[in-house]
Amino acid sequence: MKLYNDKLAPNPRRVRIFLAEKGIHVPTEDVAIMKGEHKTPEHRARNAFGQLPVLELDDGTHISESVAICRYFEELNPDPPLMGASPKEKALVEMWQRQIEFNLFMPVAMTFRHTHPAMGALETQIQPWGELNKERAQKSLQWLDQSLAGKQFITGRNFTIADITAMCAIDFGRIWRFAIPAELENARRWHAAVASRPSAKA
Amino acid sequence: MKLYNDKLAPNPRRVRIFLAEKGIHVPTEDVAIMKGEHKTPEHRARNAFGQLPVLELDDGTHISESVAICRYFEELNPDPPLMGASPKEKALVEMWQRQIEFNLFMPVAMTFRHTHPAMGALETQIQPWGELNKERAQKSLQWLDQSLAGKQFITGRNFTIADITAMCAIDFGRIWRFAIPAELENARRWHAAVASRPSAKA
Repeated sequence: MKLYNDKLAPNPRRVRIFLAEKGIHVPTEDVAIMKGEHKTPEHRARNAFGQLPVLELDDGTHISESVAICRYFEELNPDPPLMGASPKEKALVEMWQRQIEFNLFMPVAMTFRHTHPAMGALETQIQPWGELNKERAQKSLQWLDQSLAGKQFITGRNFTIADITAMCAIDFGRIWRFAIPAELENARRWHAAVASRPSAKA
Repeated sequence: MKLYNDKLAPNPRRVRIFLAEKGIHVPTEDVAIMKGEHKTPEHRARNAFGQLPVLELDDGTHISESVAICRYFEELNPDPPLMGASPKEKALVEMWQRQIEFNLFMPVAMTFRHTHPAMGALETQIQPWGELNKERAQKSLQWLDQSLAGKQFITGRNFTIADITAMCAIDFGRIWRFAIPAELENARRWHAAVASRPSAKA
């Protein structure tokens, strides 16, 4: 088993943190996005869109999509549960994970892709789309802050994949100076807590 | 239990088809998007983003996000499995579901939102972003066609949530004349098969 990884990109980080929280070690092989290694025919044979991460099983199966890779390990090693335990919990964790992905992670990524000079050579940049996403990402921080009122983690008492997605989104946003404003105290308290877990360094 | 529904929108349809395939009946209450009913304080109390569908449990819990709602029913009623049975199958179904969501469903929706005159009053339309997504949606049909070569359904022998997401995306695209070109024979054969299942009318 092998995880195709990139050290700088936010999606592989989601999987590395998930594995660290589970205490699972998976060998990695780096495919450097900034060197264009993800767009080679070799990597496109693993993932048609040239994306990372990809998990390669011993039978040669390739599993793409961070959340799908996490699902695989959650099913094999349910403890500690990072995607919920009961049907209701599983549904609620998936709800939060997706809401954060669509309203925070993607707007942060879209802002980077469509406004950052470094991405001009790799993307068809549409500046107004980037600016709209910047506003959305900032608005979503307020929603996140309200959602965290009175709660330790995003879904409640337990650290879950939703916390991982949110932390990776916010940290990735630093590249365009995205940060949690001082007045969003719940979000700041939560971020300090999740960022201080050993898994955050994975 | 109650499903807040809209008869015309593609996301509630995903859940209705999923439930029909499972043989589960859930009472619905319509919240008409075209009349703006999803943006009322009443509905925003169920979903902060004013989205549909939302599942309301008897204890008052609200579960948003189509895939999360499907997960709830899959966990409670695993047969027939629509999200995979083994850990590997579950991961692969989730991979396909997400790849279709990001590369087909979202580009189809973005094209509608950013280019269709009917959406001008509801969205900040960014025409070049809509056009880029139109190209992406069309390209993704080629990928889908290749992915379906020699396979009955998207993930293989079994009908899954990935087929539901793909069919709902393509059918939704009719609103801007999106259609599977005649030469994409695998995709056309697959679409005819899934569209003729009784669940497609749910």
